[in-house]
Amino acid sequence: MDRYDIAIIGTGPAGLSAAITATIRNKKVLLLGCRDLSQKLARAHEIQNYLGFPAVRGEDLAKAFQRHLDQMGIEITEKRINAVYAMGDFFTLQAGDEMIEATAVILATGVVQGKPLPGEEEMLGRGVSYCATCDAPLYRGKSVAVIGYSAREEAEAAFLSEVCAQVLYFPVYKEETNLPASVQVIRETVRGIEKDGEKKLVKTAENGYAVDGVFVLREAVAPGQLVPGLAVDGSHVAVNRKMEASIPGCFACGDIAGTPYQYIKAAGEGNVAALSAISYLDQLKRAKA
Amino acid sequence: MDRYDIAIIGTGPAGLSAAITATIRNKKVLLLGCRDLSQKLARAHEIQNYLGFPAVRGEDLAKAFQRHLDQMGIEITEKRINAVYAMGDFFTLQAGDEMIEATAVILATGVVQGKPLPGEEEMLGRGVSYCATCDAPLYRGKSVAVIGYSAREEAEAAFLSEVCAQVLYFPVYKEETNLPASVQVIRETVRGIEKDGEKKLVKTAENGYAVDGVFVLREAVAPGQLVPGLAVDGSHVAVNRKMEASIPGCFACGDIAGTPYQYIKAAGEGNVAALSAISYLDQLKRAKA
Repeated sequence: MDRYDIAIIGTGPAGLSAAITATIRNKKVLLLGCRDLSQKLARAHEIQNYLGFPAVRGEDLAKAFQRHLDQMGIEITEKRINAVYAMGDFFTLQAGDEMIEATAVILATGVVQGKPLPGEEEMLGRGVSYCATCDAPLYRGKSVAVIGYSAREEAEAAFLSEVCAQVLYFPVYKEETNLPASVQVIRETVRGIEKDGEKKLVKTAENGYAVDGVFVLREAVAPGQLVPGLAVDGSHVAVNRKMEASIPGCFACGDIAGTPYQYIKAAGEGNVAALSAISYLDQLKRAKA
Repeated sequence: MDRYDIAIIGTGPAGLSAAITATIRNKKVLLLGCRDLSQKLARAHEIQNYLGFPAVRGEDLAKAFQRHLDQMGIEITEKRINAVYAMGDFFTLQAGDEMIEATAVILATGVVQGKPLPGEEEMLGRGVSYCATCDAPLYRGKSVAVIGYSAREEAEAAFLSEVCAQVLYFPVYKEETNLPASVQVIRETVRGIEKDGEKKLVKTAENGYAVDGVFVLREAVAPGQLVPGLAVDGSHVAVNRKMEASIPGCFACGDIAGTPYQYIKAAGEGNVAALSAISYLDQLKRAKA
């Protein structure tokens, strides 16, 4: 398996900025995220304080970012990373059933907005999953609920519908859904997940839906769940001014590294995280020499 | 005297970014620096990693920044700040013989490149000065040397030539000088400053020049000299992730706040410093209410 120098998870301003700096420095970079960059950015009505772009629409700023990537030949790999494991002097990234190796990892996944659902954390790994690709085989021929926080999660629900006997889809967004007919869309506000004998009960304000498994799919996963063993500070990765996280070789930047949630702050931190990762790679190389 | 909410010292990317964010938040902002922004930026050949501006010339990035200021109606006040004094719940900024008050201060002056000259720090205030406007009266009718680190300092030397009997000017740059005929330009590398009885001796590789006073004029002043009592970390202001310096109400961002010296990092930190200053103002207001 080819090992990357730096894997960057996230394609908001922090991840893109990190990718640009690491690429300039000739590192072997894997940039993981969505080709349409950050949804949050693209939806922003007007951004006033990204220095150099007065009163810019989010969409236009995203285009400027895309041009920057294009001009440098940086490509985005569309894989969802379910977990990052520290292996000593490298990291293994789990992307569904694929494993990716990188010497350093930069977390730029954004922050989980809002709290977990009642029951979500307690039942994680015991009927609640964050990864359709990983856990779909467990529910072959069974019934599942998918709580999808963005339209992107519909692809996961569609995939599950090929494997499972029944898929209930709870969109946590207003846009119309575009799903196979076999997926049952339920427009009710999910209040929590409960245990119900062998089943799990998705509770809404109106009803309770008993299923075998529940997939909670958000754009960002809580950092402590993404990287087991990583020191966190609430919903953020604990970092110092160099954007170093608690595990050597792991860096964080942007919203996941703390407030304020600002584009220019994220871009600045991405740059710092990349330079710190490069410095870490150099040290490691010297130590091995 | 009108008191500003936030005085921002420096017009590189950090100071501009701070000014933009503070202005959006309706604070009474004083942005102090040079109307032609950062010399370092304007001279940069090509910048590759300011996200959104692929392979941009420093000059063009500076123009984009200027457009951003213009579009928001932000003006730059061209005053050199010689010292910032913490007065409790506000700061006094000394600009030559003028005093300016601000509730919060953001330091974005960039970093002093290189070490002080041998003898410089020892004789500071005892024959060595950083401020022509402040200390010129001390040398009326006497001889002074001016060690100028950029062409901007020539205005100070010209001013001194109106007051002093003799002005020797040592340019620490290659550009041609444009000075009154009475100023003697000496193109020798200054090695240090020594005490010589009542006089000060400017030592070059070739000669020694005895004068009554020596002005060492750089674009940036060491932070500990700019803000007496401020905790520093080498040539940087010691800050936390919120860009808070050791004195409440004082913030720092950009190169003065530490490495890496990068435009996008500076812009990001300026944003954070402004938001932290705003939060400080809010707290102060609540405490007084």
